[in-house]
Amino acid sequence: MQIGMVGLGKMGYNLVLNLLDHKHDVVAYDVNQTQVKEIEKEGASSAYSLEELVTKLEKPRVVWLMVPAGEITEQVLSSLKNLLDKEDIVIDGGNSNYKDTLERAESLSDKGISFVDVGTSGGVEGARNGVCMMAGGDERVLNYLEPVFKDISVKDGYLASGKPGSGHFLKMIHNGIEYGMMQAIAEGFDILEKSPFDYNYEEVAKVWNNGSVIRSWLMELTENAFKKDPKLSEIRGVMNSSGEGKWTVETALDLQTAAPVIAMSLMMRYRSQETDTFNGKVVAALRNEFGGHEVVKVNK
Amino acid sequence: MQIGMVGLGKMGYNLVLNLLDHKHDVVAYDVNQTQVKEIEKEGASSAYSLEELVTKLEKPRVVWLMVPAGEITEQVLSSLKNLLDKEDIVIDGGNSNYKDTLERAESLSDKGISFVDVGTSGGVEGARNGVCMMAGGDERVLNYLEPVFKDISVKDGYLASGKPGSGHFLKMIHNGIEYGMMQAIAEGFDILEKSPFDYNYEEVAKVWNNGSVIRSWLMELTENAFKKDPKLSEIRGVMNSSGEGKWTVETALDLQTAAPVIAMSLMMRYRSQETDTFNGKVVAALRNEFGGHEVVKVNK
Amino acid sequence: MQIGMVGLGKMGYNLVLNLLDHKHDVVAYDVNQTQVKEIEKEGASSAYSLEELVTKLEKPRVVWLMVPAGEITEQVLSSLKNLLDKEDIVIDGGNSNYKDTLERAESLSDKGISFVDVGTSGGVEGARNGVCMMAGGDERVLNYLEPVFKDISVKDGYLASGKPGSGHFLKMIHNGIEYGMMQAIAEGFDILEKSPFDYNYEEVAKVWNNGSVIRSWLMELTENAFKKDPKLSEIRGVMNSSGEGKWTVETALDLQTAAPVIAMSLMMRYRSQETDTFNGKVVAALRNEFGGHEVVKVNK
Amino acid sequence: MQIGMVGLGKMGYNLVLNLLDHKHDVVAYDVNQTQVKEIEKEGASSAYSLEELVTKLEKPRVVWLMVPAGEITEQVLSSLKNLLDKEDIVIDGGNSNYKDTLERAESLSDKGISFVDVGTSGGVEGARNGVCMMAGGDERVLNYLEPVFKDISVKDGYLASGKPGSGHFLKMIHNGIEYGMMQAIAEGFDILEKSPFDYNYEEVAKVWNNGSVIRSWLMELTENAFKKDPKLSEIRGVMNSSGEGKWTVETALDLQTAAPVIAMSLMMRYRSQETDTFNGKVVAALRNEFGGHEVVKVNK
Repeated sequence: MQIGMVGLGKMGYNLVLNLLDHKHDVVAYDVNQTQVKEIEKEGASSAYSLEELVTKLEKPRVVWLMVPAGEITEQVLSSLKNLLDKEDIVIDGGNSNYKDTLERAESLSDKGISFVDVGTSGGVEGARNGVCMMAGGDERVLNYLEPVFKDISVKDGYLASGKPGSGHFLKMIHNGIEYGMMQAIAEGFDILEKSPFDYNYEEVAKVWNNGSVIRSWLMELTENAFKKDPKLSEIRGVMNSSGEGKWTVETALDLQTAAPVIAMSLMMRYRSQETDTFNGKVVAALRNEFGGHEVVKVNK
Repeated sequence: MQIGMVGLGKMGYNLVLNLLDHKHDVVAYDVNQTQVKEIEKEGASSAYSLEELVTKLEKPRVVWLMVPAGEITEQVLSSLKNLLDKEDIVIDGGNSNYKDTLERAESLSDKGISFVDVGTSGGVEGARNGVCMMAGGDERVLNYLEPVFKDISVKDGYLASGKPGSGHFLKMIHNGIEYGMMQAIAEGFDILEKSPFDYNYEEVAKVWNNGSVIRSWLMELTENAFKKDPKLSEIRGVMNSSGEGKWTVETALDLQTAAPVIAMSLMMRYRSQETDTFNGKVVAALRNEFGGHEVVKVNK
Repeated sequence: MQIGMVGLGKMGYNLVLNLLDHKHDVVAYDVNQTQVKEIEKEGASSAYSLEELVTKLEKPRVVWLMVPAGEITEQVLSSLKNLLDKEDIVIDGGNSNYKDTLERAESLSDKGISFVDVGTSGGVEGARNGVCMMAGGDERVLNYLEPVFKDISVKDGYLASGKPGSGHFLKMIHNGIEYGMMQAIAEGFDILEKSPFDYNYEEVAKVWNNGSVIRSWLMELTENAFKKDPKLSEIRGVMNSSGEGKWTVETALDLQTAAPVIAMSLMMRYRSQETDTFNGKVVAALRNEFGGHEVVKVNK
Repeated sequence: MQIGMVGLGKMGYNLVLNLLDHKHDVVAYDVNQTQVKEIEKEGASSAYSLEELVTKLEKPRVVWLMVPAGEITEQVLSSLKNLLDKEDIVIDGGNSNYKDTLERAESLSDKGISFVDVGTSGGVEGARNGVCMMAGGDERVLNYLEPVFKDISVKDGYLASGKPGSGHFLKMIHNGIEYGMMQAIAEGFDILEKSPFDYNYEEVAKVWNNGSVIRSWLMELTENAFKKDPKLSEIRGVMNSSGEGKWTVETALDLQTAAPVIAMSLMMRYRSQETDTFNGKVVAALRNEFGGHEVVKVNK
């Protein structure tokens, strides 16, 4: 099938290579011309503007977005709405908020353009060699695209998850679970680090990856990380986040669901971004007020 | 009534003054002789050893401990067990773990000595002018002591809470609730501090203390704290703890009760004692492993 | 001052009585005509439509809304925007989301209408006899209204909190703190209920209200509740919520602040609305899968 | 090597089969004689008392306990201390609390008996075909046993984790992480269940097991569980627990570590054991007190 790829970052670039491996034609565009030239050498056709991309695609066109969620996705979709025609298909493979997806599917349907939301997992390595994909959209359109999606996914790593929005929703929840799993693993190692025992963490992660209940890809990555830096002494414990954990918690609240583990995972990330907190100052001040408990002074 | 006070720290010293105000005889002892001399000037009889204290008391003796919970309390009680006789009464007014209290009451009863556990709240100021007390012990003994307890408590600030251990248990739970309330207040002000508005926190605490649902002594203390240091810029947000919050959580676990707010209040205190965490390093390393997300390097 | 009150529910009705006590003129309107007739007997002027209300007010008009937050507030404001003139003032005394408030202040300012957001606390009893108010708005307008606000508030129970939105924001945080305090108290009593001791909860709440660190209005209400129903055996533990706790958590997330206690308080409310959970089923099924641990069957 | 196995429950029985597969001699004992007769048919020698077991073993004897942690383990060890001699080895393969383990290792060393604590993971299926083991003990003894442990473990599934206690400690933390991972997965599916989408959960678990970041054995078990009962409609969401999650939280508190995710996972289990809570009643009563919010009556 012929695919127009918009966005040649780490994920998009490797997805193109993956598509080419499976004999699909790709017309590739990025605002960064270097990336476009690079991918051309790999066998993709080049486009230096959205217009050119659209022109080079046969109808019904299939345009796949791998661009940052939020404003940029919004801008590209807005341009594409003008450039594309009835029966064309847009795939958003980024980490968009499913609420935006619902609005965008609605908006594009005004012009008869189909919208497919694909949650993509597996990291850069997955994009290159076999990705995990959850796709929401109209059944007819998903059926049409299925051969492509199956080609570039790992075995059983593609799911047509249901109506529009369901793919991004599922990816959001996937990431929420990921937050919880990572925090659980991290709490475990934090307790080990403070314990009276003297563990080799790479060995611990390794034994847990072989036969234990908690064996998992994340634990394998933990093993890799400790192999490189046995005590993680070179990095600080600042845990950033990129949105989907927050959306998961917000969605839990909207649906009146208790999701304490995912919520705490997120909040501990926020906490890690501060070296001191106003929260802590208030409690310390109060303890001093009622019990005369000493406070720790600044600059001491 | 004649009372032997052991321990003339902030709490014990002020309780003696309070007892003297109400015309009770006090024989006072502390390992720190300066404190003993000081309190003698206020009208108490002095004792420079436990033995002297016991000798100076008429039977049935009433010995009141206001010493640090844990080992010191244990040592004093062990000595007193040898020194005291059948029908004598020991009051533990410290923040002892109720499980220790149950064992101690049992142990002293071997010799016919009565044990009363008193949870004491209200801070130093309360000890001086009117304290809040929750007392566990045998009904007969509590009835005997009640006039003293009522004299030094604020109106309705004394409760005979039930059998031995019930006083310290109740104080423990009181402190657990205190942890939760303080953290709730602190989280609120932390959000205000990060908000787009420019609040005067003393004024905020003040208005909340007048007519609002959350008016409370802790909010009054918050007002005082902000009056002294409007942004708490002189203190660090290190939240120490002294044991009763931890016991509350442990008790909740023993009783298979969900107490998420008290547990999180305690854990955020532990978190505040670290400037960086191993937990955070693990999550940061994992995000780097699967997504190539940048980590913050040490010394940057 | 002459005030037009829109909304004569529990809060609005009592605020009118409070205003009348302080010799203010009130023109009162509610969709429920019975309420209007009722308040007329108390000394207010009646209005049976927004139009009539607006007509009866002298310029610059002051219209005070005490209607449910959300859609109804939106509708009334939309109507008022058409009916009112430059220099008129609208007060929203309801529990509106501060984000809505910011938009509404902006929208009304197009026509030169001033908007004041007032967070109101203290319950029905407070509305009647002395309320706690936090008001956001332009300084000039707040100064103009201050005498009225001070009249109906308890002493020191009024705060001009800053620019538009700051009043509703502050009330939101107030309620977030309230969630945390209530949950802390409730967890404490839950542990008491499962403890080996046999406490009288009314007495416990009473002693804690006299001299202890956690004395508070909420603890007084706890005392009242236990006085009426010593074991709360007549009510179920379903904890509903009306929005502000959720907004507080959402705001914490937006500001990247850890607020674990407020978040957990909210989530335990959601949990209480379910008698069984899908969450629990998944964990039970997993325990059965790996360890053969027995599950509890439905209908057993 | 010759091994004496005490305890032929699900785990012990399958470990014996596993040992026999690898040509080790096993003398097997259980209080349940049927189990002993059964395992005899499989090739083990039988023992109908601890005394018989000890008699049948050559020195230095190796006795492996797979009996319930707590009292039963205590009793068996107490008997073994009398029966065994200097240089004999006891392996505790159960889920014992590491604090007990430290005391037991100390106690047995009085008689010159070595103690090895082995945390065992992988479930029944692992016990049979390849287990995951973490062993604490003296290096010399661990080296002696290593060939046996390696035989019955999966590749890289055995770790000599350090000094006595370190094996059970590591298994405890493993289970703590397991609690957090399971709760994270369960929260994710709970949100899906309340979402506006109509997912097939078996398919969701399957796609997440193929190429995604959260692929794991627990997710495979989730897939299995949904294959058997697509909505888990036959089981109730009661989440029991057997001790190690609790110990992990207690250990976190002892080490002053924040472990919010593991703590919340545990507390949600406790919560699931109740259909109504006193906590909820208190909050509901308070909301009624200050705001007149309706409560849900019992029997409605």
